[in-house]
Amino acid sequence: MKELVFGHKNPDTDAICAAKAYSYLQNQRGFETDAVALGEPNEETKFVLDYFKEPAPRVIEKASDEVEAVMLVDHNEPQQSVDDIKDLTVTHVVDHHRIANFDTAAPLYYHAEPLGCCSTIVYKEYKASGVEVPEKIAGLMLSAIISDTLLFKSPTTTDEDKQAVEELAQIAGVDYEKYGLEMLKAGTNLASKTEEELITADAKSFEMGGKTVRVDQVNTVDLDEVFARESALRAAIEKQNQEEGYDLFLLMVTNILDSDTRLLVVGEPQDVVEKAFGKKLVDNKVDLPGVVSRKKQIVPQMQKAFEN
Amino acid sequence: MKELVFGHKNPDTDAICAAKAYSYLQNQRGFETDAVALGEPNEETKFVLDYFKEPAPRVIEKASDEVEAVMLVDHNEPQQSVDDIKDLTVTHVVDHHRIANFDTAAPLYYHAEPLGCCSTIVYKEYKASGVEVPEKIAGLMLSAIISDTLLFKSPTTTDEDKQAVEELAQIAGVDYEKYGLEMLKAGTNLASKTEEELITADAKSFEMGGKTVRVDQVNTVDLDEVFARESALRAAIEKQNQEEGYDLFLLMVTNILDSDTRLLVVGEPQDVVEKAFGKKLVDNKVDLPGVVSRKKQIVPQMQKAFEN
Repeated sequence: MKELVFGHKNPDTDAICAAKAYSYLQNQRGFETDAVALGEPNEETKFVLDYFKEPAPRVIEKASDEVEAVMLVDHNEPQQSVDDIKDLTVTHVVDHHRIANFDTAAPLYYHAEPLGCCSTIVYKEYKASGVEVPEKIAGLMLSAIISDTLLFKSPTTTDEDKQAVEELAQIAGVDYEKYGLEMLKAGTNLASKTEEELITADAKSFEMGGKTVRVDQVNTVDLDEVFARESALRAAIEKQNQEEGYDLFLLMVTNILDSDTRLLVVGEPQDVVEKAFGKKLVDNKVDLPGVVSRKKQIVPQMQKAFEN
Repeated sequence: MKELVFGHKNPDTDAICAAKAYSYLQNQRGFETDAVALGEPNEETKFVLDYFKEPAPRVIEKASDEVEAVMLVDHNEPQQSVDDIKDLTVTHVVDHHRIANFDTAAPLYYHAEPLGCCSTIVYKEYKASGVEVPEKIAGLMLSAIISDTLLFKSPTTTDEDKQAVEELAQIAGVDYEKYGLEMLKAGTNLASKTEEELITADAKSFEMGGKTVRVDQVNTVDLDEVFARESALRAAIEKQNQEEGYDLFLLMVTNILDSDTRLLVVGEPQDVVEKAFGKKLVDNKVDLPGVVSRKKQIVPQMQKAFEN
C-alpha cells in the first residue's frame, strides 16, 4: 500500500532532500513510496534541485485523500506536519529534532539522533541497509547537511555530519566547500523578497507553556540590510500573529558569515525571552553572538524559560 | 557524566534485561551508565537472573538525586517511567511501543521499531556497533524476547525476533525452546500471589480520551484457576481504581498455551470496551480468542474506540 514521505511545512533544503532520499531508500527496501512536500522549495533549495537536475517534489496540502499511511522526515510535531496528520498512520519517522506532541496509537519505526541534519541520519540508514547511494541523491543529501549546519559553522554540527558530507561529495563528485558557499549565498537573496515572505519562508510553530510560539530564521550576509526594513517587518509580524493566533514571534536574523543572530521579538510574553537568554531586550531586539541554531540555541532555552 | 538506564515501572523480563544489556553496550561505547529498575523483578525475571547468575538491578524511586540524564528502554510514556522524569533529561530511548505524551526540550537519540521485544532492538544496536555480546547478556536478551513474544506465539513476533533468539541462543549456549517453556512456566506461579499482586505486577497506565486506563496482564496455563478468584480480584481492582484514580481497569488473563485472553473489565466507560472489540461484555467479562498482546491487540483498539 502506497505511502507518502515528506518533511515539515515551509520546507527547507533538508525537508525536501531528506524526503527524496528516504523515499528512494524505502523503495529499494520494498516499500512503495512517493516523496512530496508541504510547500514550494525556497531559493536555496531551487538552486540545489537545478544543480543536480532533480524535479521539485509535488506539493500537497492533505494526504488522507490518497494514502492511509505516511513517513515523516525532519519533523514530528503535528503543527509542522500535513494538516490532516491526525487522520493518518505514521509508520516511520527519521528526524533530528526534539519530540513533542507526537502521539501514535501503535508502535512504529522511529530513528532520531541529535545530529546536525536529518539527511545525515538518512545517509546512515543507506549504509546500514547496504543500499547504494545514487549520485544525484548524494548531491541532495550533502546539500541538506551543508544547509542545516551552515557549512559546519552551526554548533549543531557533529563529526558524523562532516564525515557524511565528505563521503557524499566523493559520490556526487563536487567540491563541497566551493559548492556549499554558492548554495548558501543563493539562499540569502533577500532584496527580492517581501516582508511577508521573509517572516514565513522558514518559520515553525512550537507549543510552549500553553502559548503558540513562532520562530522564523532569515539567513543573510548583512544584518543592516535586513534591519533597514525593521518597521515593515514588525508590521507584517503583528498582522500575522493576529491572523494566525501566534502569541509570540521570534525572528532570528542570522549572519551566516559571522555566525551571529539578532532576534526581533513581537508579541507576548517578552520577559520569557529575556529569561531564556539572560539579556534585556532593547526596543524588542537582542543580539545573540554565536547563535545560529534555532533547534539548539533558541527552542530549548525558550522551552526551559517557559517551564520555570 | 553518569546516566541511569531503566525500563518501565512494574518491570517485566524485557524491562530489566534490556536495561542491563543496553547499559553494558553504552558503557562499551564510552558512556558511563548504570542499569537500575523501577521495581523488583517478577517470578519469571527472578528465574532468568538466577539461571544466568546475574544480580537483580538496584531499585530506584527517583533519579534526579543522583543523575541529571537518563536513558529509557522498553517505554517512553511518562506515567510508566520514574516519578521525577520531568526533572531529568532523556538522552536515549530504545523502545518498541507507541509514542505518547513523550516531550523533550532538545533533540535526543531515539530508536524504536515495531518489533516483538525491546531487547531485539538492543541486540540490533550491538550488531550495528560491532560490540561483542557477552554470554550472560545474550542469555538475558533471549529471555526477554521469549517472554515478550510468549515463545513466538504472540502476533507481535517478527522474523527479526526469531532470528535474534536463534543467534543469541548460540552465544548463550542454551536450547531456547526447552529453556523458554521452563521460564514462562516459572512466571505463571499464581497460587502463591495475592490478588493485590496479581493486579499490580504487570500493569501499565495509559491516557486515553482524557481517562486513565489501567491494563494488567496475568499469564496462566489455566483460566479457571484465576477466575475461581474473580470476586476477590474485582474487589481488589475496585479498591485500587479508587485509591489510584484509574477510571477503567482491564485485567487480561491470558492462557499462554492456547493463546487466548479473558478480559475482566472494572470501571467506566464499559461501552468503549465493547466498541473496541465488537463484542458485548457479559458480567463485565469478554473472551478474546487469539488475543495475547496488550500492545498490539488491546491498546490500539481501545485508543481508537476512545477517539471515535
